[in-house]
Amino acid sequence: MMPPDIDKIISGAVRQALARNKGTRTYASVTLAAAQTLIEKVFAEAERMGVPVIAAVADAGANTVAVARMDGAITASYDIAVNKAYTSAALHMSTADLARLAAPGGDLYGIQHQGGGKIVVFGGGEPLCAEGATVGGIGVSGGTLQQDTHLAAFAKKYWEDNICR
Amino acid sequence: MMPPDIDKIISGAVRQALARNKGTRTYASVTLAAAQTLIEKVFAEAERMGVPVIAAVADAGANTVAVARMDGAITASYDIAVNKAYTSAALHMSTADLARLAAPGGDLYGIQHQGGGKIVVFGGGEPLCAEGATVGGIGVSGGTLQQDTHLAAFAKKYWEDNICR
Amino acid sequence: MMPPDIDKIISGAVRQALARNKGTRTYASVTLAAAQTLIEKVFAEAERMGVPVIAAVADAGANTVAVARMDGAITASYDIAVNKAYTSAALHMSTADLARLAAPGGDLYGIQHQGGGKIVVFGGGEPLCAEGATVGGIGVSGGTLQQDTHLAAFAKKYWEDNICR
Amino acid sequence: MMPPDIDKIISGAVRQALARNKGTRTYASVTLAAAQTLIEKVFAEAERMGVPVIAAVADAGANTVAVARMDGAITASYDIAVNKAYTSAALHMSTADLARLAAPGGDLYGIQHQGGGKIVVFGGGEPLCAEGATVGGIGVSGGTLQQDTHLAAFAKKYWEDNICR
Repeated sequence: MMPPDIDKIISGAVRQALARNKGTRTYASVTLAAAQTLIEKVFAEAERMGVPVIAAVADAGANTVAVARMDGAITASYDIAVNKAYTSAALHMSTADLARLAAPGGDLYGIQHQGGGKIVVFGGGEPLCAEGATVGGIGVSGGTLQQDTHLAAFAKKYWEDNICR
Repeated sequence: MMPPDIDKIISGAVRQALARNKGTRTYASVTLAAAQTLIEKVFAEAERMGVPVIAAVADAGANTVAVARMDGAITASYDIAVNKAYTSAALHMSTADLARLAAPGGDLYGIQHQGGGKIVVFGGGEPLCAEGATVGGIGVSGGTLQQDTHLAAFAKKYWEDNICR
Repeated sequence: MMPPDIDKIISGAVRQALARNKGTRTYASVTLAAAQTLIEKVFAEAERMGVPVIAAVADAGANTVAVARMDGAITASYDIAVNKAYTSAALHMSTADLARLAAPGGDLYGIQHQGGGKIVVFGGGEPLCAEGATVGGIGVSGGTLQQDTHLAAFAKKYWEDNICR
Repeated sequence: MMPPDIDKIISGAVRQALARNKGTRTYASVTLAAAQTLIEKVFAEAERMGVPVIAAVADAGANTVAVARMDGAITASYDIAVNKAYTSAALHMSTADLARLAAPGGDLYGIQHQGGGKIVVFGGGEPLCAEGATVGGIGVSGGTLQQDTHLAAFAKKYWEDNICR
């Protein structure tokens, strides 16, 4: 059993470690292993649904970690899956929520013209969180809007229930 | 008349052929000859209608197979025809159907900002299918929306009735 | 043992099949499963060498099939790995060979300005072949030129020796 | 004085913390405060030299943290400073070193055409490191090549001597 003063001891050691890294902060980001597990789980669910899709995972800096295309998935979905992952990671937001904000009359109407064409404003992208921070994003494309939205939410739930619990 | 065991013999030969191609899958794609026939038929119909157009055909990987511009067709239509063919082949969808999905309130509102400006969201692009798979796409531009939409649908029907029947 | 007239029987059946697919030709392309195996093998070799890299595989139409980034690989290498795979698949050529052709005085000097920035003219990309046809390409980036070139050649050799033999 | 088993206690606590963050890895990145200090120091030196410049700092994911333009600095230098910071952070390399590699005959000749125009291949960009890892990059533009190169190296040295020592 840990001694009662462990928090103080650790916070001192952590302060020391931080002192060695003046000028920087540390943050958490999704690993390649976790990204590949998520893509694998999305593909299993997509296969069950009978729709070939493309899935992508971006890291905390919104840079792509992994992408894969199921055999037969439609070509245009490659960019869209990558960009959904980018959008969710870069905006810390579900692209299904963004759809409402980006619609005519919405608060962010026109945001789709920002970011050099990388912002997707329809469902299928979800942020991945850990300890309250966004550590990446997942994007799925290739099915109907409903299918893509379901698959991204499925991945997000898998992440929360099985990887980052 | 074929002997009764022909299916087994062929499936064996096909299995052998597949074994020689481990790591690959095969798919069908529109030929140059078929693309040129389609463009020729579109041009004959466009001439009958009195409108000079540009027509393009993309293959199963959404790469352009052939493009031709009737004398006098408007300059900007070159990119649009190529991109309509791209869009139909890459999304496995008519650009007239996509117009509805990409409109404000539609499921894919905002998709026109994806794909680096190659996704066209108004009529005049149609996918070309064979045995249930998309093997390419045709794009027509140069007339009114109605004329372009008619000409792409005309090409698609010709493909189904005369080439890929 | 097959009867002596098997070739005639099969060629007749194939002709029938082709007749059902008038207007199309079939071609072979790398599968997702093979792409993932190649990336895994490149990563094992890169780990052995102590350099984190990004690896990408493109299909016969030069569209990306899969990409993955080893934890810690440099950010800029993502685009470069994807584009090396594109270049090799789209040009049916090693990017190490293309480097010589694209150098000042070379036959293809200036080709790096074509293709919207997707053509890479230094080593690390190799075409993947099957039965004499290019069925895709692999791209590796993240190490020195020598390391990337070695890893792409390693993947190409693995493809030829173990997957598409 | 710390008890002798402190390392074990901490490593246990860290393991617990990591278990709570399964699927992620942590990395260090430059803070806004440090970025602003660096830019301030570059501007003081540039003022001493009599040349108005633009300075930018990118984080570990190569995303911009801060940019500032001295009054009178030339307009085009904004993009160049941002891209020099991007290049150094994304390639873990000085743009002065990259200049040699990207020249005709160099290992990475042609790399300037990658990354959508964000890779700068002349001096004035330097990576910022901490504990052996790249945690960001600084880019300076507005003076001559020699001035920009000096100012970026000046910032890097200040970082190493005063911030991240």
